[in-house]
Amino acid sequence: MNAEATPTLQETPEDQIKALRANPQPTLRAVSPGMEQHLYTPYKVLDHGFVRVVDYMGDDAAIVQAARVSYGAGTKAARDDSGLIRYLMRHWHSTPFEMCEIKLHVKLPVFVARQWIRHRTANVNEYSARYSILDREFYIPAAEDLAAQSVVNNQGRGEALTGEEAARVLRYLQDDAARSYDHYEEMISQDGQQGLARELARMNLPANIYTQWYWKVDLHNLFHFLRLRADAHAQYEIRVYAEQMCKLVADWVPAAYGAFEDYRMGGVNLSAKGIEVIKRRLSGEEVTQETSGMSKGEWREFAAVFAG
Amino acid sequence: MNAEATPTLQETPEDQIKALRANPQPTLRAVSPGMEQHLYTPYKVLDHGFVRVVDYMGDDAAIVQAARVSYGAGTKAARDDSGLIRYLMRHWHSTPFEMCEIKLHVKLPVFVARQWIRHRTANVNEYSARYSILDREFYIPAAEDLAAQSVVNNQGRGEALTGEEAARVLRYLQDDAARSYDHYEEMISQDGQQGLARELARMNLPANIYTQWYWKVDLHNLFHFLRLRADAHAQYEIRVYAEQMCKLVADWVPAAYGAFEDYRMGGVNLSAKGIEVIKRRLSGEEVTQETSGMSKGEWREFAAVFAG
Amino acid sequence: MNAEATPTLQETPEDQIKALRANPQPTLRAVSPGMEQHLYTPYKVLDHGFVRVVDYMGDDAAIVQAARVSYGAGTKAARDDSGLIRYLMRHWHSTPFEMCEIKLHVKLPVFVARQWIRHRTANVNEYSARYSILDREFYIPAAEDLAAQSVVNNQGRGEALTGEEAARVLRYLQDDAARSYDHYEEMISQDGQQGLARELARMNLPANIYTQWYWKVDLHNLFHFLRLRADAHAQYEIRVYAEQMCKLVADWVPAAYGAFEDYRMGGVNLSAKGIEVIKRRLSGEEVTQETSGMSKGEWREFAAVFAG
Amino acid sequence: MNAEATPTLQETPEDQIKALRANPQPTLRAVSPGMEQHLYTPYKVLDHGFVRVVDYMGDDAAIVQAARVSYGAGTKAARDDSGLIRYLMRHWHSTPFEMCEIKLHVKLPVFVARQWIRHRTANVNEYSARYSILDREFYIPAAEDLAAQSVVNNQGRGEALTGEEAARVLRYLQDDAARSYDHYEEMISQDGQQGLARELARMNLPANIYTQWYWKVDLHNLFHFLRLRADAHAQYEIRVYAEQMCKLVADWVPAAYGAFEDYRMGGVNLSAKGIEVIKRRLSGEEVTQETSGMSKGEWREFAAVFAG
Repeated sequence: MNAEATPTLQETPEDQIKALRANPQPTLRAVSPGMEQHLYTPYKVLDHGFVRVVDYMGDDAAIVQAARVSYGAGTKAARDDSGLIRYLMRHWHSTPFEMCEIKLHVKLPVFVARQWIRHRTANVNEYSARYSILDREFYIPAAEDLAAQSVVNNQGRGEALTGEEAARVLRYLQDDAARSYDHYEEMISQDGQQGLARELARMNLPANIYTQWYWKVDLHNLFHFLRLRADAHAQYEIRVYAEQMCKLVADWVPAAYGAFEDYRMGGVNLSAKGIEVIKRRLSGEEVTQETSGMSKGEWREFAAVFAG
Repeated sequence: MNAEATPTLQETPEDQIKALRANPQPTLRAVSPGMEQHLYTPYKVLDHGFVRVVDYMGDDAAIVQAARVSYGAGTKAARDDSGLIRYLMRHWHSTPFEMCEIKLHVKLPVFVARQWIRHRTANVNEYSARYSILDREFYIPAAEDLAAQSVVNNQGRGEALTGEEAARVLRYLQDDAARSYDHYEEMISQDGQQGLARELARMNLPANIYTQWYWKVDLHNLFHFLRLRADAHAQYEIRVYAEQMCKLVADWVPAAYGAFEDYRMGGVNLSAKGIEVIKRRLSGEEVTQETSGMSKGEWREFAAVFAG
Repeated sequence: MNAEATPTLQETPEDQIKALRANPQPTLRAVSPGMEQHLYTPYKVLDHGFVRVVDYMGDDAAIVQAARVSYGAGTKAARDDSGLIRYLMRHWHSTPFEMCEIKLHVKLPVFVARQWIRHRTANVNEYSARYSILDREFYIPAAEDLAAQSVVNNQGRGEALTGEEAARVLRYLQDDAARSYDHYEEMISQDGQQGLARELARMNLPANIYTQWYWKVDLHNLFHFLRLRADAHAQYEIRVYAEQMCKLVADWVPAAYGAFEDYRMGGVNLSAKGIEVIKRRLSGEEVTQETSGMSKGEWREFAAVFAG
Repeated sequence: MNAEATPTLQETPEDQIKALRANPQPTLRAVSPGMEQHLYTPYKVLDHGFVRVVDYMGDDAAIVQAARVSYGAGTKAARDDSGLIRYLMRHWHSTPFEMCEIKLHVKLPVFVARQWIRHRTANVNEYSARYSILDREFYIPAAEDLAAQSVVNNQGRGEALTGEEAARVLRYLQDDAARSYDHYEEMISQDGQQGLARELARMNLPANIYTQWYWKVDLHNLFHFLRLRADAHAQYEIRVYAEQMCKLVADWVPAAYGAFEDYRMGGVNLSAKGIEVIKRRLSGEEVTQETSGMSKGEWREFAAVFAG
């Protein structure tokens, strides 16, 4: 990107963070006490990853303020604000939630980054492997996370591998990563040779190598991300990031997060057919997949929530 | 939007702002001293409008930090950071500038709001005339801003109107606004009648009535907005908002704003043909529109910068 | 916008449309027969508005094709494709629906345009009143649409006004529009005077004047628009546009539209609390608002679907 | 994504394409003859990649039509339209160009896909390695593309490697890819073992493996992509895709592409300082870096265009 400074992937030393945390400055902006306590702290995810809050804008009151389009306020009781936030969430009013913003520093394996980046409504600055050298750090799953392919679902996971098979998989992942990185280092070395361009050498590195980025997003789009990625059907390796982020958001905007949990994470979208089936059942009728008008897949998902 | 609170268009009373400004709170986030001094202060624009900074995220250092994707820093001299910011601006690196965000409270005439909203990469919460009642406030141009249609440019303005013509225009604008508002009030009144729905009654109001919104945008997209709207060709009534915002941004992120002024506001985009003409002239050749390969319009714009 | 051509707001004459419709050209692209029959035909909405399809990209098969990321296909039976589309809709897979695109020419009152434009994920070219002269056309509601303000809902409409009140409202709307337009014309006239700049004169025009634009959007974002604007709670004057668009989309992508109707328009979002209440009722328990854990507003909306 | 159909990465057989190309259908939409001839044809890029146009919307006339916001037209001579398009490009009017849209099917190495996806204003459906099995296809650079790291620029490339060093690099890239893929296949195999989940096994694959996607974008954003990626400073491996796309766009919208070449690809952005230096030189003054007010880097870039 520029010829003057070489960024590195190493974490900020602990003493530097301590210094930052020791020097609060006065501001007139909205402050979220729940979030202040998390600022700059890297919360560990997977074996070498982390999520760290770098900055934030707004709090629960900022959502309410935008919804009321009058900024002073402070006059309303907390209970009213919380009720208004629940109303906004229930009725899919997205713009007031867009008034809050968060900036995260995330360290994550490349294959997780590839899923993550599909959410386009965010700002991203990723570590550049054209310009800089990647660190020798790879995600190697814990034994209990070495899942087999699901036999009922083309996309899901089954039980954890065991015995010799599990051992062989781990060996492959470790050995291939190590060898690829050795060759990466050897190819870019300028010790007694020209040295391959970094932008080319990186192509030898596997998708479990770690990268880093700054990721900035508004609360509405963050909720959308969390609904999809903290969901039980999301891949485990991205879900753990989403779950960590849920904890941070719960402390940042407790009322909004509560509404999100009730209406989005814990809620369900019912089709016109689904409403009809429930009404028939409430009126005492027995309904089966055959009489429901639903396909088998649809019925299975419906029954998983409301039983048969 | 909801049945519990009726927002109003009135400005926050001065004493409420004073209270806010008297109570700074400690934060660990990046703080821009230049911006803190402007927080909450409504800067007057046009006859009844204003721009007020409600919140911001980041500063010059946050741009550099994102560009370097390492957050601690602080080790580099200011001069280096400023050089990097200029480099980023020169090479159209947009993502580091997206790491800063600003939230404004703006009061503006509807016809200005209609131009403004065309910039889609921002978050907006506008005062709702479906739900609330608009105030009796209209933009009436000052005498010197009552411009005639340009005779050389279908889109531009010419000299200010004078004499009887100017007086008649002012009278029309004032009388029509007053009468429309009287009828608006009368139609929605529930005093001895049903009262027309607000969402319908508002259609009687002219485009110079004032509205308000919260507008949140990242610095990259704000610069794009300012480049187009603080430009001499922008309509005067939106340009004065952009110019006020330029002043605020200059205090918020001085280095980034300096680069923006040099490369965007004060810069020019030269076509391949334009480069060729300059090279020919530098080598001593006389070049005219006829020999330039440019159309007349193109040549006129080119000559306005580099003379003939 | 430019000095060479003056766009006008007049509709394309019928014979010009007839000529276009008489000259189909061969293409290798996906063709939707259902949509071809609507191309260029202006479907009337409100008193002077219309919706006209100018272009489209893709069809039901294009959604399936993108979902399968292999383009030839054609091997699967229609029923499979339709099942896959329902699966995608049910599971909020948005990207395959983004693979279809539509371009509309819409004529609509300014206050409707102001609601519409809040949907930011679309491309818009609006008629410019800085450069051109607006036509003398205003939306005047039919007698049955002259609704009173709702007494139970700050945002909604009640019964239609009647008698003298209705007559007075109509008179105000008609007279104020006519007078404002007379003055608009008089102010911009260059007959014996300088003539006020168009960009200024337009501020005298009320929000029920008609404007026009080209609006281009992908199918996913169009569905989002339709879900909100074809909803019973949307303002009548934008809902009629959305309803007309629903008819066009139903002919364009019948399978996708069917899924949209079932899962979005006819569906409902149930909160965790709502799921719990339904389970309790299915198991025979009597549940009231007091024992539901819901607020009164929430319960009212819940009961409107599933009765008490 | 769904349990019913397994997409594969194989190219569509030639006979299937031939069948499609043999069956043009009539349409009333705008047709670009220049683009019709390219539809469905995969244009080879790198060793195993391709770019294929799957669909498009609009042509040069559609840009003009949107700019004029009147759709019939046909009355203006081609020269006028082309002049208007040049005017729009020169003045950064983006919305008329957004009225054209293109959908591409692209096969590309993962490390190229990672650069490409940073352009967020597009619609993407990528082949899913959670659900499907990737093919054994890797990008292995041709000998002349095995560039050394630049010694003058942290991000660039120098001369091609030679001799033993080049041979060793090629061997590493080939052997590591082959071994990683062998292990990938072995890990997911369900032959006599459980078989590792695909979503995990993929992490062993290097960044030069090929993926595929459908990528849909409007012309304005495509031009922005091409300006950055067809630029001489872009990485070679993405530049060859951009260059192939430039050829397709030139046949699709010749007038718009011509303006793009002149104002964007061949143009340059001059800062206020740059304008000043040119004026001084035009008036006969000698200007050096020291007297220019520019930094060394800035001056170097300036001098590269206008000499010293």
